[in-house]
Amino acid sequence: MNKFEVKAFGTQAADAPLKQMNINRREVLAEDIEIEIMYCGVCHSDLHTARNDWGGTVYPAVPGHEIIGKVTRVGSGVTKVKVGDFAGVGCLVDSCGECESCKHDLEQYCSNGWTGTYNGKDKHLGTRTYGGYSEKIVVDEHFVLKVPANLNLAAVAPLLCAGITTWSPLRHWGVGANSKVAVVGLGGLGHMAIKLAKGLGAEVTLFSRTPDKMKDALELGADAVVISTDADHMKSVTGKFDLIIDTVPYIHDINPYISTLNVSGTIVIVGFLGGLEPLLSTVPLILGRKSVAGSLIGGIAETQEMLDFCGKHNIVSEIEVIKIQEINEAYERMLKSDVRYRFVIDMASLK
Amino acid sequence: MNKFEVKAFGTQAADAPLKQMNINRREVLAEDIEIEIMYCGVCHSDLHTARNDWGGTVYPAVPGHEIIGKVTRVGSGVTKVKVGDFAGVGCLVDSCGECESCKHDLEQYCSNGWTGTYNGKDKHLGTRTYGGYSEKIVVDEHFVLKVPANLNLAAVAPLLCAGITTWSPLRHWGVGANSKVAVVGLGGLGHMAIKLAKGLGAEVTLFSRTPDKMKDALELGADAVVISTDADHMKSVTGKFDLIIDTVPYIHDINPYISTLNVSGTIVIVGFLGGLEPLLSTVPLILGRKSVAGSLIGGIAETQEMLDFCGKHNIVSEIEVIKIQEINEAYERMLKSDVRYRFVIDMASLK
Repeated sequence: MNKFEVKAFGTQAADAPLKQMNINRREVLAEDIEIEIMYCGVCHSDLHTARNDWGGTVYPAVPGHEIIGKVTRVGSGVTKVKVGDFAGVGCLVDSCGECESCKHDLEQYCSNGWTGTYNGKDKHLGTRTYGGYSEKIVVDEHFVLKVPANLNLAAVAPLLCAGITTWSPLRHWGVGANSKVAVVGLGGLGHMAIKLAKGLGAEVTLFSRTPDKMKDALELGADAVVISTDADHMKSVTGKFDLIIDTVPYIHDINPYISTLNVSGTIVIVGFLGGLEPLLSTVPLILGRKSVAGSLIGGIAETQEMLDFCGKHNIVSEIEVIKIQEINEAYERMLKSDVRYRFVIDMASLK
Repeated sequence: MNKFEVKAFGTQAADAPLKQMNINRREVLAEDIEIEIMYCGVCHSDLHTARNDWGGTVYPAVPGHEIIGKVTRVGSGVTKVKVGDFAGVGCLVDSCGECESCKHDLEQYCSNGWTGTYNGKDKHLGTRTYGGYSEKIVVDEHFVLKVPANLNLAAVAPLLCAGITTWSPLRHWGVGANSKVAVVGLGGLGHMAIKLAKGLGAEVTLFSRTPDKMKDALELGADAVVISTDADHMKSVTGKFDLIIDTVPYIHDINPYISTLNVSGTIVIVGFLGGLEPLLSTVPLILGRKSVAGSLIGGIAETQEMLDFCGKHNIVSEIEVIKIQEINEAYERMLKSDVRYRFVIDMASLK
């Protein structure tokens, strides 16, 4: 397989800072699109992968799966975009294309295993895949998104992960104008959940542990903020919500939120991977036909749907633009939740 | 409120056997139906209530909420049935009628609290409600079911609780001819889940801890039995099921069953009230958009729908008919799972 070298920013070990390196991209195949990367959002998964928090990281690791750029080359069979168009790449760059999930536009649940944009098994080069902290990326057109031209491109980048991760459950569980939605946690995912649920016409409430996020949440479009540590405040929303999107990435008790679900309501966990502790009680689930569910990013068609929706409704992420050379410091700030609400790297800084 | 006395079988204390006693029924009001009870199914809840296993039992307690009988009197406003008709009463005899749940035929989720057929707060007499281990019952016509004439009436009785408890989730989660359904546990609920799912056209699998229930399950209509203690056997159904109805009434690990759910699949717990232990992991929920849900009996309209369906498809419960004088022995046998699959009391024995 022919390949070419591009500049990137990555790490050689879990305890090493990210620094400049060179990586290979495959030559553009018939179905491939080469994108010169303009912006790349910084997701918590980037940090977890760089530091091998989940195990399984193969080094060198080049994170980044909220990619926006300009098309610089296309293969002979490409029809989706043309050279000069803006394009995006999210968390997925490949899947089997043949299983029931793939056939139903649910590539994120590919039963043969999808290929992540970084630290995935690259079917072409035999290495791991390298993400968006780089000059260019070459991706099969099926996994490339078209980007609405009217939006701030830097602020579109986080839609490719934080946006679709909250959009997909909002859509799957049928949120619309008559829905009452709550969001747990106001970070990269939470702030997008508020904007997107609001865009869909829902009444939106933020659950927050402290009142200090009240002003921000209301500015982002939330109709109300409920302080989850205040028992009376929580009681005031008993049985209220049709859907709760829980974006909290660490272990926490979800039982109090279940009390705030309406009959047949669902709490969808998108942030925390692990065992539910304290024990999840079946009692309120049975007494109100309630569900606890999970959801993973979204499929390609659904991601395009979200981008088109955001273009129409002028929805983007709240961002702080940084240079690639500031990435290690940005990771430290993310660990302190010191970002409102997403860092985006201006990849011109890598040149 | 005028009332009259009827014979019943009940208990005066958690540690006392059931014995004959007299209880009061209200005089028939305009919307009321008086039913002479012919058969009453014996549910595990009867035993738990008689023995105060859940707390909250007020004595005397007269169990029984799988009631089939003949209409002997109707109030002036009754239109649903006439004297001489067969009729049924399930787990509910009253609800507020005004909340969103009641307005949507979900009386079992009444937000003001429904009235159970026994040990509920009787709005008319001020006592607790008394169930079907009795000569007669007087019930508001809204909570009375019409019974298909072509079925074995004794074997219809368990449909009123065991039947509707499994029917409701099968319907809510859209089970039909292309569905793959699994059932955990082969008791009163489990055997009805198999019959009803099969009746709806689904492919049905029973999960069982041991192979000894294989023959029975296949005779009841199951397409397959998977031995849940056999890791290889479990692995053979990874990702297979759209819906799992978990009828097991004691604490058990549901994580292995979640692996057998297809993408977007749901496991519905109908039998166990308590904390999920070992810890429920969010990982497979997120990686496959799976749900853990609960479900409680069913609404009145849905119960009628089920009875009509059973009439059309000749579906009844597998029963062993007993006399009311055998009820204490029957409870002991239930505790040893020594019943295939439901005791039904021939109430003529009370005369």
